[in-house]
Amino acid sequence: MAMTGVLRPAHCELRVLDLDETLSFYLNILGLTEVARDAAGRVYLKTSNETDQHSLVLRKADRPGMDNYAFKVIDEVTLERLESDLRAYGVATEWIPEGEMLNTGRRVRFESPTGHIFDLFASKAPAPDLRSYTNPTLFDHEGVGINPVRLDHWQIHGTDLDGSVKLFSEVLGFSTVEKIVTNDGKTDLACWMTCSHKPHDVAFVRDERPNTLHHLAYLIGSWEQLLRAADLMSARRVKIDAGPMRHGITQGTTIYAFDPSGNRIETFCGGYDYYPDMPMTVWTENEMGAAVFYHTRELNERFLTVVT
Amino acid sequence: MAMTGVLRPAHCELRVLDLDETLSFYLNILGLTEVARDAAGRVYLKTSNETDQHSLVLRKADRPGMDNYAFKVIDEVTLERLESDLRAYGVATEWIPEGEMLNTGRRVRFESPTGHIFDLFASKAPAPDLRSYTNPTLFDHEGVGINPVRLDHWQIHGTDLDGSVKLFSEVLGFSTVEKIVTNDGKTDLACWMTCSHKPHDVAFVRDERPNTLHHLAYLIGSWEQLLRAADLMSARRVKIDAGPMRHGITQGTTIYAFDPSGNRIETFCGGYDYYPDMPMTVWTENEMGAAVFYHTRELNERFLTVVT
Amino acid sequence: MAMTGVLRPAHCELRVLDLDETLSFYLNILGLTEVARDAAGRVYLKTSNETDQHSLVLRKADRPGMDNYAFKVIDEVTLERLESDLRAYGVATEWIPEGEMLNTGRRVRFESPTGHIFDLFASKAPAPDLRSYTNPTLFDHEGVGINPVRLDHWQIHGTDLDGSVKLFSEVLGFSTVEKIVTNDGKTDLACWMTCSHKPHDVAFVRDERPNTLHHLAYLIGSWEQLLRAADLMSARRVKIDAGPMRHGITQGTTIYAFDPSGNRIETFCGGYDYYPDMPMTVWTENEMGAAVFYHTRELNERFLTVVT
Amino acid sequence: MAMTGVLRPAHCELRVLDLDETLSFYLNILGLTEVARDAAGRVYLKTSNETDQHSLVLRKADRPGMDNYAFKVIDEVTLERLESDLRAYGVATEWIPEGEMLNTGRRVRFESPTGHIFDLFASKAPAPDLRSYTNPTLFDHEGVGINPVRLDHWQIHGTDLDGSVKLFSEVLGFSTVEKIVTNDGKTDLACWMTCSHKPHDVAFVRDERPNTLHHLAYLIGSWEQLLRAADLMSARRVKIDAGPMRHGITQGTTIYAFDPSGNRIETFCGGYDYYPDMPMTVWTENEMGAAVFYHTRELNERFLTVVT
Repeated sequence: MAMTGVLRPAHCELRVLDLDETLSFYLNILGLTEVARDAAGRVYLKTSNETDQHSLVLRKADRPGMDNYAFKVIDEVTLERLESDLRAYGVATEWIPEGEMLNTGRRVRFESPTGHIFDLFASKAPAPDLRSYTNPTLFDHEGVGINPVRLDHWQIHGTDLDGSVKLFSEVLGFSTVEKIVTNDGKTDLACWMTCSHKPHDVAFVRDERPNTLHHLAYLIGSWEQLLRAADLMSARRVKIDAGPMRHGITQGTTIYAFDPSGNRIETFCGGYDYYPDMPMTVWTENEMGAAVFYHTRELNERFLTVVT
Repeated sequence: MAMTGVLRPAHCELRVLDLDETLSFYLNILGLTEVARDAAGRVYLKTSNETDQHSLVLRKADRPGMDNYAFKVIDEVTLERLESDLRAYGVATEWIPEGEMLNTGRRVRFESPTGHIFDLFASKAPAPDLRSYTNPTLFDHEGVGINPVRLDHWQIHGTDLDGSVKLFSEVLGFSTVEKIVTNDGKTDLACWMTCSHKPHDVAFVRDERPNTLHHLAYLIGSWEQLLRAADLMSARRVKIDAGPMRHGITQGTTIYAFDPSGNRIETFCGGYDYYPDMPMTVWTENEMGAAVFYHTRELNERFLTVVT
Repeated sequence: MAMTGVLRPAHCELRVLDLDETLSFYLNILGLTEVARDAAGRVYLKTSNETDQHSLVLRKADRPGMDNYAFKVIDEVTLERLESDLRAYGVATEWIPEGEMLNTGRRVRFESPTGHIFDLFASKAPAPDLRSYTNPTLFDHEGVGINPVRLDHWQIHGTDLDGSVKLFSEVLGFSTVEKIVTNDGKTDLACWMTCSHKPHDVAFVRDERPNTLHHLAYLIGSWEQLLRAADLMSARRVKIDAGPMRHGITQGTTIYAFDPSGNRIETFCGGYDYYPDMPMTVWTENEMGAAVFYHTRELNERFLTVVT
Repeated sequence: MAMTGVLRPAHCELRVLDLDETLSFYLNILGLTEVARDAAGRVYLKTSNETDQHSLVLRKADRPGMDNYAFKVIDEVTLERLESDLRAYGVATEWIPEGEMLNTGRRVRFESPTGHIFDLFASKAPAPDLRSYTNPTLFDHEGVGINPVRLDHWQIHGTDLDGSVKLFSEVLGFSTVEKIVTNDGKTDLACWMTCSHKPHDVAFVRDERPNTLHHLAYLIGSWEQLLRAADLMSARRVKIDAGPMRHGITQGTTIYAFDPSGNRIETFCGGYDYYPDMPMTVWTENEMGAAVFYHTRELNERFLTVVT
């Protein structure tokens, strides 16, 4: 009972153009900590609060975007079962061996119908800066930069939206919490899916550009910390795309901005707790403005078009 | 996968001395809405945000305290399985028929080793004030009183702490997220248990007084709303026991106060998200002050002694 | 010593197209209270917190905009002195007799070089809902709508910016706290002026359209209350122009929106405390984006062009 | 017009027992910056936001408490006038020469009827870390420790309360904003006095112990920053006296704590804006609990008795 199967978005491998400049953004402005570098030159990062070794891996590349998206599952037995279920469903799987990623167990890799590469894994080294769990001293961290709580979710785009949603529902046990549909109600345009109490762990959006990233999101502790994030990003000349504002979908609050490589990053706060006995919320295309930018009820063109 | 089994604390039946006076507190100060009254004179209440019919039932009685505590489970099949599992574990169960509680399905009733009466159920009528789930208009509620989000958890006391913890772990699938132990580490004094992502859905405390209630808790949306709650309680001359402050355990923020019948009620905000791969946090008795009243690191006598 | 002379923006008379519809906005969404109506059909409004009778007067007219802007001065002697000083400076004055505005003392009226009509007065009836000042019960007001603290300031446009700034400095004792200048530093484009600790009580902007209103502003208690204001405005379909966001100038936070008559209204929070020993902050035209919309560092076209 | 005369509490000289330990508290927990040390070994500190050189001076001594309290006045002419007014009123004055305090102009020193040493001065060097006032980059400071806005006020105790209030009213132009009186209304027990828009710049309390300090207060930016302050103080084992909570008087929010030398320090947030046309608020002794600790409406014994 309680939580089983897939736990949460656990890490992702992001392509960056200028490693030093983009790393500086993630270290000094977003406020992640560098945990390790591997032989391939990848840089491993985490928030001060995350209990596993890393949640973001930066890789220097000639175009931005995301190499792959990893979910942690509860144990190795579940990992094996999910790998078997994926194959039974007709999805090709690949085992990435333990250690290909530093201090990280074996991973099951598959491609979703929207063209994204997903990994599932069950074990990763604990964070090197893990605090004591006996009589802990809490809240002694002063924070650097925005200092988010954790990696939260991804919004990713591709053509076969229906295929990815079906796969995540039927094999991985995700629920669709909210969606946007065409005005005639016949076609899903975007689906917010969860494997937990969060209003979404991943969002899929129908888009002619397969395997693209709209944004990766880190969780922020409060609306006031979002203000501080926006203040800091302006002071450091980070390009803010939109926000601070409220989402209709998830009811969370948000700022969208771009890292120096052009990847969109969301600092996301809150949203309701999902329970599986809740009705699904459906937004029609003509109310998409309110669904996403709740305050102004109008989307900006950049938000609608830029992906990496 | 995802959530299964027991979902959350769903409602409880509270004994009150003067029904009108105590009801006025819950309506006008806490800001619940009266949904219904039944033939037995019980009053059904809910928050503006809850999607099921009610989360609190008031019953006039000659002493305060809680009659019973109900968890919602995901479906009727699960309810039957849990009933069978309880019996197999050696716990006597009773089926309370549908309709004994208004618009509420059949309930499995059992007594925990700490002497508390628990109910499990799978169906309840939706809230009469449920908003639309198609292109919803959000945040249009101005709120009355403190206006909490939902029923959150209970802290309850009894002698056989170990028995209740074992039952909730082994049969109902709860996890112990944090606990307080004697300084020698040999005896558990209190356990915070969850069936979800919340840092606790119920807390059991070792106490010579079986079947007692330390507090019922409603969830508040933010630290600033806690300030408003404290301001309003002072203005209306509600007796505040302690707070606003931070807990060490759960890391949530809180105010404790008393309803006019003397039942302690917590307005609780936040706390971290629990995942089953997190280490358990253990506090020793000599650090109990920091564990519960994190800021002053000292408990008050009233908090340690008054239960109903 | 301490404060003398002109105290604060005290009320203004706003032209509205449909009195009922616009009044409903000010009552039910902004959350002002109707205090009185006079023989001319004007409606008098105040916040729950203001201690004088009214801060806003609505008048039905065939075009939106502001009829006049009134500052309260500390006493009748000061009022007479300021009237004399205005005349000595070469400004024509007119005495509006006591009672022309309900329960409001005589007013000195003059036109500023930017074409706006200003009133000074020293006495007004106390608010009919004034709370006790002996052992007060505080924070017992649940609030309707956005529920601002008080009328805060106005931003007004006209051709002779220099003339209005000189008049307010030399005769009325205002200080220029911040300003925007052309990139060559030779011409002032906008001046934020204060008669108090506030970072501005009035802002003058150079504009070819004399006697125009960019916005009237009410003060909001916190950044979180601004979020609630934006949520409520969206839910009630109020057109939000921009925000929530931070200003560079004043460092306050803000939302701009339009009332049903098309007048822009700001809900403004915070800003630093001004002291006369602070340096003046100067922004050049090429940094005007950051000066006004600090987060995105870009103004929207509507904000730059729409006045009433 | 506008502000004249005495501007604000500008600095104070605090006696500390162990200079290193207490300095570490002010630097690393409160988050002040060390600006300078003088030949006498005194350490000069300021907040990141203050525009003058320092607001706190620490002096090693064999008992805690405050040596003197300094207000900045608007200019040298005013300083001379106030010195003359003090003498005319019958108060002895002394000129402390420029430079006795580093980079600080001449000071007029006098003793109040409550036995406290006050200084008035008009000039002090600007902060060495002063940011640009042309196209400033705002909010780029990440903050160390609690990171307050500025020195805010003092609460000081002595026998001749009436004498100090009369002197500050009649000579220095302060207003009494709120006071606590005996239940028969005949005797003032405490007076909150302002020379500005703040609800108090200094509070005098009747006490048999002349020339004592109840607390010095630094201003905090928000209620959420107060939570962070309380979290940090607990994490660093600072002794919190009371709070976070609301005051009835001033309506501000607060935490009281002790520095390592036993001096009580308040982190204070907010409070209303005072205008001289507001009624004075009067609290009677039997409502003193609500007046000071608004939420619990009960004072703690330590708060009532400990001064330095």
